[in-house]
Amino acid sequence: MINKFCKQPLWECNKTLIAVAQGQQPAETVIRGAKLVNVCTHEIQEGIDVAISCGRIAYVGADAGHCIGPDTLVIDAQGSYLAPGFLDGHIHIESSMMGAAEYGKAVVPHGTTGIYWDPHEVANVVGLAGVQVMVEDSKRTPLKAMVTTPSCVPAVPGFEDTGSAIGPDEVRETMDWDSVVGLGEMMNFPGVLAGADHPLGEMSATLQADKCITGHYSIPETDRGLNAYVASGVRSCHESTRAEDALAKIRLGMYAKFREGSAWHDLHDLAPAIAQGNLDTRFCCLISDDTHPHTLTTVGHLDHILRRAVQEGIDPITAIQMVTINTATCFHMDNELGAVAPGKCADLVLLDNLTDFNVSLVMIDGDLVAKDGSPLFTVAEASYPDWITHTMHMAPGQVITPESFAIPAVDGGGNPVEGDAATVRVMEAIPARVGNYERHLRVPVVDGKLVSVPEQDILKCFVFERHHGTGSFGYGFTTGFGIRGALAQTVAHDAHNLLVVGSNDKDMALAANTLIECGGGAVAVCDGEVRGLAKLPVAGLMSDAPLEVISEQAAGLAKAWAEIGCSMPSPFMTMGLLSLACLPELRLTNKGLVDCTTFQFVPLVVEEERAPEA
Amino acid sequence: MINKFCKQPLWECNKTLIAVAQGQQPAETVIRGAKLVNVCTHEIQEGIDVAISCGRIAYVGADAGHCIGPDTLVIDAQGSYLAPGFLDGHIHIESSMMGAAEYGKAVVPHGTTGIYWDPHEVANVVGLAGVQVMVEDSKRTPLKAMVTTPSCVPAVPGFEDTGSAIGPDEVRETMDWDSVVGLGEMMNFPGVLAGADHPLGEMSATLQADKCITGHYSIPETDRGLNAYVASGVRSCHESTRAEDALAKIRLGMYAKFREGSAWHDLHDLAPAIAQGNLDTRFCCLISDDTHPHTLTTVGHLDHILRRAVQEGIDPITAIQMVTINTATCFHMDNELGAVAPGKCADLVLLDNLTDFNVSLVMIDGDLVAKDGSPLFTVAEASYPDWITHTMHMAPGQVITPESFAIPAVDGGGNPVEGDAATVRVMEAIPARVGNYERHLRVPVVDGKLVSVPEQDILKCFVFERHHGTGSFGYGFTTGFGIRGALAQTVAHDAHNLLVVGSNDKDMALAANTLIECGGGAVAVCDGEVRGLAKLPVAGLMSDAPLEVISEQAAGLAKAWAEIGCSMPSPFMTMGLLSLACLPELRLTNKGLVDCTTFQFVPLVVEEERAPEA
Repeated sequence: MINKFCKQPLWECNKTLIAVAQGQQPAETVIRGAKLVNVCTHEIQEGIDVAISCGRIAYVGADAGHCIGPDTLVIDAQGSYLAPGFLDGHIHIESSMMGAAEYGKAVVPHGTTGIYWDPHEVANVVGLAGVQVMVEDSKRTPLKAMVTTPSCVPAVPGFEDTGSAIGPDEVRETMDWDSVVGLGEMMNFPGVLAGADHPLGEMSATLQADKCITGHYSIPETDRGLNAYVASGVRSCHESTRAEDALAKIRLGMYAKFREGSAWHDLHDLAPAIAQGNLDTRFCCLISDDTHPHTLTTVGHLDHILRRAVQEGIDPITAIQMVTINTATCFHMDNELGAVAPGKCADLVLLDNLTDFNVSLVMIDGDLVAKDGSPLFTVAEASYPDWITHTMHMAPGQVITPESFAIPAVDGGGNPVEGDAATVRVMEAIPARVGNYERHLRVPVVDGKLVSVPEQDILKCFVFERHHGTGSFGYGFTTGFGIRGALAQTVAHDAHNLLVVGSNDKDMALAANTLIECGGGAVAVCDGEVRGLAKLPVAGLMSDAPLEVISEQAAGLAKAWAEIGCSMPSPFMTMGLLSLACLPELRLTNKGLVDCTTFQFVPLVVEEERAPEA
Repeated sequence: MINKFCKQPLWECNKTLIAVAQGQQPAETVIRGAKLVNVCTHEIQEGIDVAISCGRIAYVGADAGHCIGPDTLVIDAQGSYLAPGFLDGHIHIESSMMGAAEYGKAVVPHGTTGIYWDPHEVANVVGLAGVQVMVEDSKRTPLKAMVTTPSCVPAVPGFEDTGSAIGPDEVRETMDWDSVVGLGEMMNFPGVLAGADHPLGEMSATLQADKCITGHYSIPETDRGLNAYVASGVRSCHESTRAEDALAKIRLGMYAKFREGSAWHDLHDLAPAIAQGNLDTRFCCLISDDTHPHTLTTVGHLDHILRRAVQEGIDPITAIQMVTINTATCFHMDNELGAVAPGKCADLVLLDNLTDFNVSLVMIDGDLVAKDGSPLFTVAEASYPDWITHTMHMAPGQVITPESFAIPAVDGGGNPVEGDAATVRVMEAIPARVGNYERHLRVPVVDGKLVSVPEQDILKCFVFERHHGTGSFGYGFTTGFGIRGALAQTVAHDAHNLLVVGSNDKDMALAANTLIECGGGAVAVCDGEVRGLAKLPVAGLMSDAPLEVISEQAAGLAKAWAEIGCSMPSPFMTMGLLSLACLPELRLTNKGLVDCTTFQFVPLVVEEERAPEA
């Protein structure tokens, strides 16, 4: 597709490139003496020079001496590896808790030169207007922030209340935006498999605009359902969690995006799909999906995922192809991005080796943008409109107190349960995975209420609607977090209502009120005290502060989580999925508990005839 | 890009495919029990079923039993190999001497389901109007005949007179045609390297339409010039004749199209670029460029080239990728073509094995179109407008006689040469190659004329302008054909003027007049007798007769060639390049002899101070 993410379209500057390549006009920049990671041929070429002008590559070869003039910037690569800049094929900026510009500042020094991002978190809260705010923000850094229009806002219509909604008309409108290169993850695969008008209408608008539909097929079924999903026109999927899922997808010509986010560590299980054997890996990509700020500032972004891929036995050049040429080809942008080759955008990185992938230099559109881990650009303080920083729209007069967290001990028909205990559906979080389990566990009945069992790690969980002041809320139980106290966050996928988990009602109330007061964020409370708080006033999802500040807040929050008992990696993210009703098996929204294998609301109390598991 | 070559756009029929894949609606066709050549993963999958509806693939998997209804056509593959239909990434239909529909009839039974064709022969004679006639003709068969707009008409402006011309405006106009998917081979690489407005304007129009520029870079230079050419935006090239050329191109991210035409046998020399080693071959394709009718009816088309590729040591699945997914990706049509995968067009073949590549069944858009080497469709007799079948526009009153072939023995300044012999520039044809050599040989001077030396195979060569009746002509000598008598043809690349080669002036006159009379074609004459004639009245390039007739005529012509002394493979094609002034080293147009390494007219007689070679 036409690439709007360049300094100049090729048709405006190819005459210059032609002259530079032949030494008739000096290059703006020449890199000398690199080991080229050639992603086109899957080989390392030693002693390669690259000449650059107009933000594009003019020459790649053994000697670019003829391209050097008096004003040419000459960079001695000193034998470093030169690779195309890294592309993340599926990412939600909001998960980093940063604005788009701060995100760029965080990832560019790690070698990321382009992202295909799905702003569906902000869209759920404040719609396309919010997306536009983020797009404008993204333009303040050199990072190529290529948008896929959110397809599932709400994620699971009818099962949750969001701040906004997107349908075929909105998708069609955005296909004309310069920033939009495709459709965001089509999570509504049940709707697709049912041939529903809403998802198919959005996909139709995308296909008619000749853009790429990105997918989300998160069930282990790889035969009829997967075939139907691929046949619908979805070109990629990042939801494989088993090697056989990824293999089934690439066999069907679907791009399988191997995910390694802060909280979802799929690479270990996925790598065997391609680490052994001699399969063609052109349909494989590496992506992050959701990355925590602390991950970005400490271990990194795609550089870290490359490191992990190699640790898991994937060939290093193959791994680099998975964040460069393969990703660009998925979006039909391989004529412009994803390779160090003449005519293409001069988006590239220098690396010390192909094990650690330490990035020493990053160039985007021919400009040096990062060196030795630091950005060479600055980002002024963000300025957001008021409507996007004030999105805690609770019901008028709604006061959250410990009593708000009482759970009536009634069955599905509304009748009081008998006895001093009841079997309830419990969401069991799985560390480092997006899926969860539905467990049936016994909780006590006290004064007609179901209560938590902290000593067995059975905690209460509430979701309060926060967009339209309806006052609605859902409740249930969760296990797996192991905390004492309470946690709350307005990052609660994808509707981003106010999610609260806790071992006691007083701490839960404090946690909820703390976030209502500060405009959203994430908080950890214990014994009536706020132990960690990340303020995220931008749509209740992102900070308006610089990277360093939010990273510190997030680190403080992580520390608080650990102090009150949680040992999960990035538990904040796992908790945020408790409300995402398109992931198996059991989820909670502001409308109630959802069985995400049958897509039905289910009562909290399990019918008596069913025997408890434990 | 949006694929106009399908039964229905995906967005109109994906709902049906979704239902079929899940067994909720019966498929139109199901193929059972095939060995799938999976070009996405480079593997063979045993026991694969494929379900098809709306001309597209709905399901690929272990068991499509659920897709079978009472009216479903079930095809038992009996363990045959199932592969995507073959795509020829660069082809000139006119070289087959057939119209587009007859061409489809010839190649589809060999497994070809799509071609990327450059109608630049017909465009040189009758312009875009002629292209439109061919496009309409092509629609009479199921073959997907995807046009790349001719970029170089004339091929080498200023060096020849053609019937028509194409420039940036015409290219821009055609980019809106449903049939056009790119720009035809940019043979004017000297113009590109010089940054000339004409080629860059055409390329700009193509890039702005987000379509693919196909290339033609026929010199062995692989550094500055090739970089400049690739940087200009050219995405592919089929002119590599050495392994190192092809390798240099794929390293620069350019699609290298390995050619094996009737007369150009490049595969033997190119295959080592990828047959050894472990390079990624995604940028490699197999193409035919020009194929003689007899080749098509006897050895085949891409099936033959696959066979040859495997003989030359290329892995068979890799070879199949080179005529399927790689080619489709080059044109950004891989979302629609080039793989047996859900949602894609049901263009596929059944093969007996991966050595002989005998095609037993061909399907295009879900329809059975060929079986056991025969088409399952018929093509009515062609009907062409008069203006395209009457294109021998000689000068009014121009009569070609033996005297027309007198060559004055004068030097570059027009002064008579002294002595009884002179050293002249001779075009030496190279069997099975597009290039030729410039030789300096002695010919006698008799009565102030330079004469041929048949016993040393030094023959006269003439090119008469035939488009605008200007009466202009060029002359020279050629060697390598070894004939006694004369040959003439109006297939004389790319201007397609009237080309005559011969050992004596009488036969040459008879050959020329025979073609003038029949509206163009190719003829072999000896001792005052027409020994073989292929009548090609359509633009003087193609027959208006069915495949069987033209194949027989072409076979007769080939026999005649051999009888009068030529042992070259497809000499007709090699002869037709004598006039193509964009190929090295020496060529003859109606305007004179051209040095194709410096792009200058050169005198026939070599300056005295230069010593003869032999």
